[in-house]
Amino acid sequence: MKPERKIYIFDTTLRDGEQSPGASLLPEEKLKIAKQLECLNVDVIEAGFPASSEGEMRAVAMIAEHVRKPVICGLSRMIPRDIDACRSALEGAAKKRIHVFLATSQIHREFKLKKGKREIIEMAVKNIRSARKDFRQVEFSPEDASRTERDFLVDVVRAAIDAGATSINIPDTVGYAIPEEFSDLIRLLIRKNPALGKQIVLSVHCHNDLGLATANSIAAVLAGANQIECTVNGIGERAGNASVEEIAMILNTRRDFMGCYTDIKLSEITKSSRLVSHLTGMVVQPNKAIVGRNAFWHASGIHQDGILKKRQTYEIMNPKKIGLSGNQLMLGKLSGKHAFAVRVKKLGFNLSAAEIDAAFVKFKTLADKKKYIFDEDIEAILQNQIAQVPETWKLVSMKVVSETGQKPSATIRLSYQGQVSEASSTGDGPVEACYKAIETVVRSGAQVAHYGLQSVTGGKDALGDVVVKLVVGTKEVSGRGTSTDVIEASVRAYLFALNKLCQEPKRGSASASRRKIDVRL
Amino acid sequence: MKPERKIYIFDTTLRDGEQSPGASLLPEEKLKIAKQLECLNVDVIEAGFPASSEGEMRAVAMIAEHVRKPVICGLSRMIPRDIDACRSALEGAAKKRIHVFLATSQIHREFKLKKGKREIIEMAVKNIRSARKDFRQVEFSPEDASRTERDFLVDVVRAAIDAGATSINIPDTVGYAIPEEFSDLIRLLIRKNPALGKQIVLSVHCHNDLGLATANSIAAVLAGANQIECTVNGIGERAGNASVEEIAMILNTRRDFMGCYTDIKLSEITKSSRLVSHLTGMVVQPNKAIVGRNAFWHASGIHQDGILKKRQTYEIMNPKKIGLSGNQLMLGKLSGKHAFAVRVKKLGFNLSAAEIDAAFVKFKTLADKKKYIFDEDIEAILQNQIAQVPETWKLVSMKVVSETGQKPSATIRLSYQGQVSEASSTGDGPVEACYKAIETVVRSGAQVAHYGLQSVTGGKDALGDVVVKLVVGTKEVSGRGTSTDVIEASVRAYLFALNKLCQEPKRGSASASRRKIDVRL
Repeated sequence: MKPERKIYIFDTTLRDGEQSPGASLLPEEKLKIAKQLECLNVDVIEAGFPASSEGEMRAVAMIAEHVRKPVICGLSRMIPRDIDACRSALEGAAKKRIHVFLATSQIHREFKLKKGKREIIEMAVKNIRSARKDFRQVEFSPEDASRTERDFLVDVVRAAIDAGATSINIPDTVGYAIPEEFSDLIRLLIRKNPALGKQIVLSVHCHNDLGLATANSIAAVLAGANQIECTVNGIGERAGNASVEEIAMILNTRRDFMGCYTDIKLSEITKSSRLVSHLTGMVVQPNKAIVGRNAFWHASGIHQDGILKKRQTYEIMNPKKIGLSGNQLMLGKLSGKHAFAVRVKKLGFNLSAAEIDAAFVKFKTLADKKKYIFDEDIEAILQNQIAQVPETWKLVSMKVVSETGQKPSATIRLSYQGQVSEASSTGDGPVEACYKAIETVVRSGAQVAHYGLQSVTGGKDALGDVVVKLVVGTKEVSGRGTSTDVIEASVRAYLFALNKLCQEPKRGSASASRRKIDVRL
Repeated sequence: MKPERKIYIFDTTLRDGEQSPGASLLPEEKLKIAKQLECLNVDVIEAGFPASSEGEMRAVAMIAEHVRKPVICGLSRMIPRDIDACRSALEGAAKKRIHVFLATSQIHREFKLKKGKREIIEMAVKNIRSARKDFRQVEFSPEDASRTERDFLVDVVRAAIDAGATSINIPDTVGYAIPEEFSDLIRLLIRKNPALGKQIVLSVHCHNDLGLATANSIAAVLAGANQIECTVNGIGERAGNASVEEIAMILNTRRDFMGCYTDIKLSEITKSSRLVSHLTGMVVQPNKAIVGRNAFWHASGIHQDGILKKRQTYEIMNPKKIGLSGNQLMLGKLSGKHAFAVRVKKLGFNLSAAEIDAAFVKFKTLADKKKYIFDEDIEAILQNQIAQVPETWKLVSMKVVSETGQKPSATIRLSYQGQVSEASSTGDGPVEACYKAIETVVRSGAQVAHYGLQSVTGGKDALGDVVVKLVVGTKEVSGRGTSTDVIEASVRAYLFALNKLCQEPKRGSASASRRKIDVRL
């Protein structure tokens, strides 16, 4: 059996990832991400393109100074000014690399560079030699390699190695390659330059225009490449790059087939994903592999039943491995009776099989009408209160005054068993003012654990949709409110959640005490 | 040269796609999507799982009645009740198919079904025969095929074909396969059953848990499969399924390598993607291949320069083909001078090379500080007004009163060249009230073309971030406001946009008239 190969992870979140339209980062934000990438234990961090702006130069220098474990790399065109900028920016680095690139495909030679093959090779050789004076690690990328004539690419790579390049990176710059084709290219290059993937690092850098960035990277590794350039959440120019989390989890989950490994610290994946998404503003779609919200959520009844019988029936990775707390069975119209019964029990109800059957019919009826079934909805079903939560606390009136230069104030009148109470409060915003006023009346002790607000439609008559999650002791409830008035939506969401807290569920004796709420609700 | 093969597109957006946690659809919504899938020209629509609920049954029946061109398919477990439900639901279909499935892998047999190999085959044969009585097209899926013992899978597939299955679908149910491995499996099945991919449709259904759903589907096609099950935007259980838009564009863009084609109407891709995202609430991430917002956006200076010289340097697909209006060069800190100069010209300014140079330096300084550079920012730069848009209309004070049972009212005082004006208005929400009050004073004639609101952080002190786009005549401007008070953020965003409108740019003569604004701004 062949010994397992280590695959180097070259993270370019801060260079190609930052090229995502709209994702650009401030130097301090770049440093924050670089520190997290160090925790994730990537081998190389491409920190930026120092020659592109003053701020970029400063960011790369800051990262070089503060992030000491991984190699810090800077991108450079094949011109002295760029190489100088990299040298300055990386002066303080513990370990450093320069990444020089030059386009080699016919279309780039003719239309972008307006240079012939011989000029390209001369330019590469000259600048790689120059870069080697200051850098022990020089990585060379023949840009648009996957669309470059095969024989010319072989020549360029050989010339780059002879000139002193220590890593050769093969970019599928425009995301054009198909895995079967890309692995052939990698095999050809290794055949012609047997040091590649051994003494000389053989890297790939794949773009996701056709949705194949990860697949092309993996195909290249099977063909002998030993470094992958990738980004957190797969962000990057256009449709992005290969995702570091997908690469790491493929090599971990399918180590049997791949025969190689990375040093990525898997338990840092979720944290890294969230930080990058937060700072770049690049949303992760729910169906994103590994790090999407739904990646470990199961909605179908058949799958839920399987998961409850044995996790591995529908789950090839343990979500705890990547730093999540566990999988989720989302109850909805596709859920089966098994998952429903398990949830009912978990909520503290002890029902007979016949009771479960009856409740399940009602659950299905509700699920046909309602997208999200919360635990509280199930409680309502079990109490024959599907229609609505009783308005224990009822909004009599609210008045919110928001005036420039003054703290917004709110006056809220609520009725409780026919008795009306009123309170006023100010807050940093009108929503906070309302919530403080409500709490002055209700004294539930509830803390806002989450407040989410979005406009549902696009015009100025947009509906505000508010979801608020309250925590009282160990109990959590969610409420939702929708209104053309976002303040009113916020208040309704809060009261809805409070009123759920007030419901005294009919319970099996074992769990009744657990559910008691120790406030005057 | 081999003749090109047609690859059938079996769309399961309405079945597996709807299994995305949180994506469940109402029957009317399902019908709307089915009609769009017909425009997209998919070959088969898997409309749902009729036995799962009453609403689901009704949805499938409605689709069967109203969508006549594609084959309409229903999912069914291997039990008579499910087959009966499919028969009823699909009674009115012009063309119909039933999709029966049964798990075959060891882990599913042991833990989920608690059945031996022989029982599995008997159950499959019996139910396929029964289904064939009512359906000319019967598709059979050995669930978890990619983790099933190879020889048993061959046996099951042969038995299913003998029992009358007209399509065999090989699901990578848990998203476990690697392309190189999955294509080997497909080749093995064809070797053992040469009718597969010819008289018998050979289909694949891949999940995206490791980010390889599209790649595995494509690998299977290269190995001889002739149907792909996929969904719009790649939605589906957990990390979703292969994306129809990726599959269609790979086969179109790389027809040279793939040697096959689909009948997908590419120009319907963008519309389909947006409809599905809107109705399911499943966000498409900006870096999603083909349909992500950034898929055809170019942020790096080097790429922008290339694109401007020749589109194909950095673009392998023409965005117009999928129904978009064109590519986008997003200006930011990574943009080069070429893209900047082109945009300046497009905005109607005629500047000398020296003026461009000077403006570009200022642009870079601004871009280091600011994530998004709007056209209006560039205009500001060109007028030496980088610091901020002058407050032509200045907010003196605002008072918003929102009271239950009454229309929210707003009083806004604005100053214009030292003169203070005030107006009050009511509206459906406090934001609308404010905007109407502002318009009473300003009379700009601006229409709100877009209003976007989100909470930036999660607590009750969340920052509201508002972006508003105004249209006056042919001119559009965007404004942004952020505040802990969402109403104030909304007002600030509106005024910011109005003040941009007030700026009178210094222009080249040719375009000066185009930019004149015919209001008292």
